[in-house]
Amino acid sequence: MNEFDLIAQLTRALPTNPSVVTGAGDDCAVLDMGAPDRLLLFKTDAVVEGFHFTRETPPEKIGRKALARGLSDIAAMAGAPTAALVTIALPEGYDPGVVGRIYDGMNALAREHGVAIVGGETTTNPERLLISIALIGSVARGKAVLRSGAKAGDAIFVTGDLGGSLAGKNLDFEPRLAEARWLADRFSIHAMMDLSDGLAGDLRHILKASGVGAELSKSAIPISRAARVRARENTAAKPAPLAALTDGEDFELVFTLASRDAVKLLDTWREKFPELKLSCIGKIVAGEGIQIRDKSGSHRLAAHGYEHFR
Amino acid sequence: MNEFDLIAQLTRALPTNPSVVTGAGDDCAVLDMGAPDRLLLFKTDAVVEGFHFTRETPPEKIGRKALARGLSDIAAMAGAPTAALVTIALPEGYDPGVVGRIYDGMNALAREHGVAIVGGETTTNPERLLISIALIGSVARGKAVLRSGAKAGDAIFVTGDLGGSLAGKNLDFEPRLAEARWLADRFSIHAMMDLSDGLAGDLRHILKASGVGAELSKSAIPISRAARVRARENTAAKPAPLAALTDGEDFELVFTLASRDAVKLLDTWREKFPELKLSCIGKIVAGEGIQIRDKSGSHRLAAHGYEHFR
Repeated sequence: MNEFDLIAQLTRALPTNPSVVTGAGDDCAVLDMGAPDRLLLFKTDAVVEGFHFTRETPPEKIGRKALARGLSDIAAMAGAPTAALVTIALPEGYDPGVVGRIYDGMNALAREHGVAIVGGETTTNPERLLISIALIGSVARGKAVLRSGAKAGDAIFVTGDLGGSLAGKNLDFEPRLAEARWLADRFSIHAMMDLSDGLAGDLRHILKASGVGAELSKSAIPISRAARVRARENTAAKPAPLAALTDGEDFELVFTLASRDAVKLLDTWREKFPELKLSCIGKIVAGEGIQIRDKSGSHRLAAHGYEHFR
Repeated sequence: MNEFDLIAQLTRALPTNPSVVTGAGDDCAVLDMGAPDRLLLFKTDAVVEGFHFTRETPPEKIGRKALARGLSDIAAMAGAPTAALVTIALPEGYDPGVVGRIYDGMNALAREHGVAIVGGETTTNPERLLISIALIGSVARGKAVLRSGAKAGDAIFVTGDLGGSLAGKNLDFEPRLAEARWLADRFSIHAMMDLSDGLAGDLRHILKASGVGAELSKSAIPISRAARVRARENTAAKPAPLAALTDGEDFELVFTLASRDAVKLLDTWREKFPELKLSCIGKIVAGEGIQIRDKSGSHRLAAHGYEHFR
C-alpha cells in the first residue's frame, strides 16, 4: 500500500455527524448549520515555499495565490465565500515587512470578493514559509454542484485556456466565482470542479465520483498561449496539447450539463462573459476513464502516461 | 517595530463584511451565517514538530493534541464543535503508518466530542511535520463568551491545576467543552478564554480587551502536582507558583462573573463536576495589569518578568 492509498483509506473511516451533507472528497465540505435556505462550505488549502512559490516570488503574489486557491474551490461548488482564517508558519526572524506584503496581496483579493479575514495564527516553521488558509462560504440549498452528478450524454465544458500556468498564471489566476454562480443559477450543472492538477487528472475525479467515462476531442481542448510558446521554444518541453491536459494550477472550471443545454449555454455565456473563453471539449459516456479522439481515431488516455502525445 | 507589533497592526486593517460578529482577537471568530438561533464559530490551530511535539511523541498523541487545542478554543467561547478539516504537511517518504496513527488519535477525540472530520489536505513540508486543523462550531445567539466583558468587581475563576504541562498534560489535556457550555447556560459569564500561554500572559488578553485590571491571590492559584515535583527535583526549575502562572499549554478555562454569583457557582460546580477543581483566584479591578497579593502585600506582576517569585 502506498502513501496515497493509505490516506485514501484513512479518509473513508472519518468521524461524521448529522450536520455533514458532503464530507471529504469534493472541492469543499458541505455542512448544514441550520440556516433555512443555505448550506455552509468549508475548505482549507496550503501553499509551501519551494513547491507553490519560491523565495523570489513577490510576497503580494504569494498572499494572493494562497487565498485564490481556496476561493477557486468555493467557486467549484457554485458557492459564495464569506470568511477566511490565515495560518502563516515562518522561520524565526522572518522579515515582518514581507509578512505585511503577503497580507497586502491577500487582503486585496479578499476585498474584491467580499471575503472577511477574521484572524488566524502566526507560528514557526524554521526552514520555509508555509501558508494555510481556511475558508468558509455558503451556497443556496440544492445549488451546490458536486463532482458526482455527471451523466452519460452530458457535454463537458472548460473555462479559459489550459496549460503553461507556471509561466505566470499560477500566481495571477482569477477564481471563477461569478461564473460558477451564474452557471448554477441558470443551468442544471450536473458536476463541476476546479482544475488544480491538470484536466487529465482532475476530470478523472468527476468520472470516478459519477461512475462514468469521458470522450474528449483533442482539437477542442483550449491550449494557452503560454503552453504553445513553451513548446515552440523548448523542444524538450511537453507538446502544447499535452501541457493543456496535464499541467497543474490552471484553476479553470470543468463542468458537465445535459447536451441539450449546450448551445443555449454557449450563446448566453458569450453575452455575459465575453472575455472568458468557454469550450465544449467532449462528452460523458458510459464506462470509465478518458478516451481522446483525434483524426486518427479514439485512444485511451492512460492514467500515468500520455504516450499518444509524445 | 518588532514582528508582533507589525502583525498586530496588520490584523487591525483586515477586510470585513456584515457576516462578521467578532473578528480577529478572540479565541474564535464569530460569524452570522443566517441560522435563526445560532452563530458560527471558526478557528484554526497549528502544531509543529520541534515546538509542540517531538519526533519521539507517540503519533496518536500528536493527532489528539492537534485537534484538542482547537476544541479548547471552541470551549473558550462556550460553543459546541461541529466539523474539522485537517492539513498535514510532511516530508516526502514519511511513514504512512505514522500518518495513520496520527489520524487514529485525532479521530478518537473527534468521536468523543461528536466532531466530524470532513476532509483536508496532505502537502509537503520537507524538514518537519506540521499539522493545522480548521474547526467550525456553533453557539446559541447571545451565549458566546468573549474576552471583552470582564467588569470591575467580577470574581476570576480557573478550572483545574496550572503549570508543569510539559510533563505530560500538554498531550493529554481535556478540552473543557462540557464545562464551558454548562457555565454559559447557567451563569452570566462575563469573559472567558482558554489558557494556552500561561495565566499571567493570557489573563492580560481579557484585561486589555475589557479595559480592566486584576488582583490575584497568590495562595489561591491552583498549582499542579507536576509543577511542584519539578520545582522540588530541580533547583534550576521555576518555583512552582511561578510555573502555575507562566507555563504554557494548561488548556484550562479562565473566566469572570459577578462576585455575587461566586458562591452559587462553587456549590453547583462541585455537584456537577466533582472531579475537576474550580478555583476563585482573585477579582477584576479598575485600572490595568495584574497585582499579586500575598502575605507581604500586593505586588505588580510585570509583563515580562516575575521578580517577585525568583
